[in-house]
Amino acid sequence: MAADFETLRVRQDGAVMLVDIAAPPINLLGIQLVRYLVSLMQRAESDEACHVIVFASADPDYFIPHVDVTRISEYREQAARLTGEPSMAILFRRLSESRLVTIAQVEGRVRGAGSKFVLACDLRFAALESAIFSQPESGFGLIPGAGGIQHLTRLLGRARALDVMLDADDYAADLAERYVCTNRALPVGTHVECILMLAHRIAAFPAAGRAVLKARINAIALAPTDDFARDSDLFLECARDPEAQKRIQTAMTRGFQTHEGELALGHLISSV
Amino acid sequence: MAADFETLRVRQDGAVMLVDIAAPPINLLGIQLVRYLVSLMQRAESDEACHVIVFASADPDYFIPHVDVTRISEYREQAARLTGEPSMAILFRRLSESRLVTIAQVEGRVRGAGSKFVLACDLRFAALESAIFSQPESGFGLIPGAGGIQHLTRLLGRARALDVMLDADDYAADLAERYVCTNRALPVGTHVECILMLAHRIAAFPAAGRAVLKARINAIALAPTDDFARDSDLFLECARDPEAQKRIQTAMTRGFQTHEGELALGHLISSV
Amino acid sequence: MAADFETLRVRQDGAVMLVDIAAPPINLLGIQLVRYLVSLMQRAESDEACHVIVFASADPDYFIPHVDVTRISEYREQAARLTGEPSMAILFRRLSESRLVTIAQVEGRVRGAGSKFVLACDLRFAALESAIFSQPESGFGLIPGAGGIQHLTRLLGRARALDVMLDADDYAADLAERYVCTNRALPVGTHVECILMLAHRIAAFPAAGRAVLKARINAIALAPTDDFARDSDLFLECARDPEAQKRIQTAMTRGFQTHEGELALGHLISSV
Repeated sequence: MAADFETLRVRQDGAVMLVDIAAPPINLLGIQLVRYLVSLMQRAESDEACHVIVFASADPDYFIPHVDVTRISEYREQAARLTGEPSMAILFRRLSESRLVTIAQVEGRVRGAGSKFVLACDLRFAALESAIFSQPESGFGLIPGAGGIQHLTRLLGRARALDVMLDADDYAADLAERYVCTNRALPVGTHVECILMLAHRIAAFPAAGRAVLKARINAIALAPTDDFARDSDLFLECARDPEAQKRIQTAMTRGFQTHEGELALGHLISSV
Repeated sequence: MAADFETLRVRQDGAVMLVDIAAPPINLLGIQLVRYLVSLMQRAESDEACHVIVFASADPDYFIPHVDVTRISEYREQAARLTGEPSMAILFRRLSESRLVTIAQVEGRVRGAGSKFVLACDLRFAALESAIFSQPESGFGLIPGAGGIQHLTRLLGRARALDVMLDADDYAADLAERYVCTNRALPVGTHVECILMLAHRIAAFPAAGRAVLKARINAIALAPTDDFARDSDLFLECARDPEAQKRIQTAMTRGFQTHEGELALGHLISSV
Repeated sequence: MAADFETLRVRQDGAVMLVDIAAPPINLLGIQLVRYLVSLMQRAESDEACHVIVFASADPDYFIPHVDVTRISEYREQAARLTGEPSMAILFRRLSESRLVTIAQVEGRVRGAGSKFVLACDLRFAALESAIFSQPESGFGLIPGAGGIQHLTRLLGRARALDVMLDADDYAADLAERYVCTNRALPVGTHVECILMLAHRIAAFPAAGRAVLKARINAIALAPTDDFARDSDLFLECARDPEAQKRIQTAMTRGFQTHEGELALGHLISSV
């Protein structure tokens, strides 16, 4: 099955699908990763024996750092294959509405639209020692356009949402837990087993009640499609701003979108 | 006064009413407990000298575990005596709208609709060493129909609300505090005194301002009646599902709704 | 520049404006402080080189305790100079909508409308050892009318918001952090430097994206103007109540609105 999705290594473990994101060099949300993510969602949702998906990363340093800023229109076209809308925000909102329960097992760096993918999952657990979070968009004059404003503002409240989005710097798993960006931070060593047990426990319960429950929770906590779409459009507008373009270009010359260069992205941004 | 309410032992301490829930064997929200809860609310609200109610349990192991699943229509009829609607969700919402300030002093297990009773109270403090929380409904293919979805989603945010409601397992007072299910977890030994001091402090302040304050906070944070009613209806629909009925029947044979059998309910559920 | 604002000592540090609140004896939100706060906001917003304001206090014991209850109509008239509305709630909401990023560096006591000023700021950091929070209004039969109900209910959730507003007592920086009243509590000694670094980091990022971001977050998390206005009106109504007037008068005879008398305000209130 792995062959079908190239950038996603897939194993089926009973009713639980285990997915390792493997899009070297840094799991960038580019054309390939978005294409196979769409295919995977279609495949998993059509398999009635599949109830839960666990997303992990094959790269210990990066879960998903952010979108490929050099291919914005192309990866958005891939997203449109599932939703009809060239928008990562709408694609991720669709993931939140899935009948499947999605769990993010976060190790390494999760930033920008990668962070929004994680926020769109139903449950998310961070490896205490290794998970790193950030919304770097402000540093370039961009905004989190893939749903981050919608999720983070509701979860963190106005001041903490402003904090993490204006600061554009990395923060660790313990702060992410205190700020409700993640369900819980779990110590490496036990976290994989904890998540797997939870996934199988949930998958064993009746699907009908689960679907009703998720729909009711989404009715309260999932922002309207229009708000996701508006953020998505504003991201594009901001990205066309010459000042933003200049900052992105400068960042590219300093290692942006490379494995080495993004290890300390908060520092790179402040030097642009 | 205790004689009036049978399953509720009542003492008046100045402007504060102290209520011990005493409905053996496990304080199930059945016909008796709901009947006397309604009577108590009517009595307390009509007494102008009463300003605050503190609810505690006479059973150290159980605060309120959940509804009596063998008597759903009957206990709902009791709730209708106060509100005109055969729904625990509407009854508990009515409690949240009361002019009285209600405080839950949680020791032992509080699960299902018992947890919703606690969530409907204005303030809730958990005994750090003994309080145990859970929303077990998913394990049976049911949903939290008595207001739990409304309260928990707003308090915990989407992912943590999904976590506790999909997992259907017990969690302790410290996690309940971190997840904002409870105001604070207080060490046994000091918690009764702390709560009593707070109750008397609040009761001594002017009632007029307090009523305005509570109304304004409810206008923001208390979900619309229609949403409570909808959850209540969906709970009934889920409960009629043959799969749910089968799981409930199996659970009954394994100690569900008994003092011994529910000590580790999360485990019982996963074996059904 | 300090001379222009009397009760506010102002220094410009690049794109960051540093403001020390200095309105002895206790930084009461009275006629003078509100007048100069309005002037400062007008001045800072019209200066295109200014991007961030950091508010601190010149008095280690008091940040802003609350409004001057003896001059309610007069300080409200000062607020109307900026917004056309004689209401602190509307003035503070205007601050939240500013293109400027505002940061409160809280040391000492912040209570009542002072707390609402801090809640209206975009970011707020409390000195771990010295910051003290409270909403004392309930103790007098008043309500938090300057936006506190709107902010606190959304940030803390129903039960914790009721807790801090019904209790009317002081709470320390660590609880304020757990209750999401503050972004973070930072140890004295490092907190000034942390805040200054953050202020300069934010100010160096493009202004255009920041404005879009703040507008989008406000659209979600900043309550409608009508709700602020309604709370403001209800505060006035409550303040006219003879019981509230009597409590305020008694409190004045026991040191209310004096430096010494308000050190332990929670105790003073319970004795009125």
